[in-house]
Order: sequence, then structure tokens, then C-alpha cells
Amino acid sequence: MELQDALSWRYAVKKYKEAPVADDKIRRILEATNLSASSVGIQPYRVIVIKDKALRAELGAGSFNTQITDASHLLVFAAYTNIDQGMIDDLMTRTAAIRSIPVEQLADFKKMLESFLLTRTAEENFQWTSRQAYIGLGTALIAAAAEQVDSTPMEGFDSAQVDRILGLTEKGLRSVVLLSLGYRDEEQDWLASLKKVRLPVDEFAPQVG
Amino acid sequence: MELQDALSWRYAVKKYKEAPVADDKIRRILEATNLSASSVGIQPYRVIVIKDKALRAELGAGSFNTQITDASHLLVFAAYTNIDQGMIDDLMTRTAAIRSIPVEQLADFKKMLESFLLTRTAEENFQWTSRQAYIGLGTALIAAAAEQVDSTPMEGFDSAQVDRILGLTEKGLRSVVLLSLGYRDEEQDWLASLKKVRLPVDEFAPQVG
Repeated sequence: MELQDALSWRYAVKKYKEAPVADDKIRRILEATNLSASSVGIQPYRVIVIKDKALRAELGAGSFNTQITDASHLLVFAAYTNIDQGMIDDLMTRTAAIRSIPVEQLADFKKMLESFLLTRTAEENFQWTSRQAYIGLGTALIAAAAEQVDSTPMEGFDSAQVDRILGLTEKGLRSVVLLSLGYRDEEQDWLASLKKVRLPVDEFAPQVG
Repeated sequence: MELQDALSWRYAVKKYKEAPVADDKIRRILEATNLSASSVGIQPYRVIVIKDKALRAELGAGSFNTQITDASHLLVFAAYTNIDQGMIDDLMTRTAAIRSIPVEQLADFKKMLESFLLTRTAEENFQWTSRQAYIGLGTALIAAAAEQVDSTPMEGFDSAQVDRILGLTEKGLRSVVLLSLGYRDEEQDWLASLKKVRLPVDEFAPQVG
């Protein structure tokens, strides 16, 4: 599907059909999301993939977003609550391996990252890792639509509950946004037939010079 | 271009050619970005488009990102520093007009937005508007690649300087991330030929249920 068509086709589904998304489609959505840009390439977040319905019901308990359980899959975007030396070292090791260079060649890059990331507060770093996760969300939304898979991005959930159930806190992660994946129930979803509401392009993106 | 190809082709360009991006391509990138998802559909950010080289040089003064000036265009993603009643009212008016319904029909939605957005601190709202802008950045990165237009997302800039020069503060906006658009100088860009570094997909996106 062309990008413009995919973006027009996409909407935040309210009501899903009982229909599973095939594994290969989920895989391609994740592969695309993994190719998202992130600042300095460090990918400071993870995307937890949950197919099991009972687990999704547990995660969504108390939420008004019934899509968490009703869809086929749930992606939990979880950002690191801080950046540590180990993450920088891992990026160096990975970069050296993928580019077939000695890790010592990355010494300047490493020093730059350390002075940039290890001097900020945890809160500053978390705001930054969360934003990187949202770039990934932007990609995932498009990648799903390109596969003609419907989705619902959701912020209204109990992140403490999700973190506890998935054991994210111990891993230094905090859930920041959810994305349900599945197939829209066109007849039962009141939003499915409504026109997309957007700003006029020139108001959204004014040219000033 | 297929999404996977566009994502693989994209990288954060360090060195641009002297080559302008055609207006219709810029237009399609902005139209795509305008179709990005945003929480409750409120689009709480703007994308300022700057073609003028002298203005870009001024915006980038002191930055190590020479791409601000060397590329063809600069997009400044600026998030609202808070949400006010007027923005909610505007969304209601726009929604009613586009969907051809009386605005009164949106009373419940309006009340929900007010209790959600007007009770948070400015700082909470700004963190949230910034994240929405990053969804837009995710779209813009893909939309540019789909047009075979190169780009560089940049966080290392003086946002106070950019806000002052563009008069964003008076409009309640704060610049959060930049995106240069142009064409890579394949021979002079040391990064152009290097392999993309990414986590193994199963590490980036583990399945837990």
C-alpha cells in the first residue's frame, strides 16, 4: 500500500473482530519498528509482544481500553528509565561487530555518548528514552497499516500495573504507550466510517522562510 | 518504495549535496506527517518549514549540526508548552465541521478532554505534546524516505535560540526536534556506506505471551 493510502486507511480502532493477525505480519511490523531512527542509534526502549489473551486481559484490567484484550496482539512500548554505562558499552560492541571494526576505533563516539548521557538526571534520560519510543510508535503505526493490520495506540493505561505484571521494572524499563494490533469490526465500530479530522496542512506545517 | 526498503535506505545524513528538494515532494512529506496519529486527535504541535538558507544558518549558528544549513529544507517540530481551553474548542469546531455534525453532539468528548488535559501541569502537558511531535517525526522520516528524500533528525540544537528567531514562544510553542531534508552526498558522507546498527529483532521486541 502506498504511504498516503496507508495513513488515510489507519484510524484508532475501537472495536476489533475475533481474528488473529498472522505471525509473519507481526514479524514484519516488528522488523520495521526495529529499523526506526533513534538518537545516537542507541534504541533505548523495547517493544514487548503479547499474543496470549489471558495475559492481555490481566494487563488491561481496570482500563477503559477494551482493545487491549479484544485485539489480536498487544505491543507494549517500554522505555529505559535511565541510561547506564552498560548500554553504551553494548552499543559499541554491537557497532563494532556489525561494521567489522575494532571497538577501539569507536573511542571518540563512546566518550561523546558518555558525556552526553551519563551526566543527565534519570528523569531527563527517561523523557528522552520515551520520546525515542514514540518514534518507534510512529513507525509501528505505519508498518501495521502497510500490512493492512489495524491498530490502536493507547496512553490511558495503568503503567505501574503493566510494569509489575511483565516484570519491566527489574529490567529498568517503564511502559509508556500501548499498541493493539488486529482487524477492525467495521459494522460495530462507530469510528470506522467517520472522516479523519486533521488541521489544514498549511496550519499544521506553516512555511516561514 | 516499499516500507522495509525505505527504512533500510534511510540513515541520518551527515553531508548533503547542493540540491534542492522539489516543492511537491516537500508537500507530500508534510501531508503525510499531518496524517500522523496523535492522542485524542488534537495534534498539539506544529512543523515549521524553512527553505531560506540564511534563516537556516541563523537557526543553526553555534550548532555542530552543519546539516541545518547544508540541506535543502529544515523542519522544526515545535510542541505546545501547555494545552488550553481554546485548543480543545478548536478541535471541537474542526471535528464538527469535517464530520458535518452539530458541535453540541461532541459535549461528552469535550468534557472528557477538559478533565484530562486542563487538570495536568504545564510540564506534564509539554512532555505529552513533545511525545506526540515525535510520532510525527516518525512519520516524516518514513515519508521522506518514501520520496527518496534524505533526512537528518537532530536534537542537539539551541531550542531557545530557534524559538526566539522563529517567534515560537509567543505562540506557546517550543522546538523539540529538527529534521533536515535534502540529498546525501554519497562520496563525502563517511556514514553513507556504513551498515545500519540495530538490535536483533527478538531482543528489541521480545514475545512474552
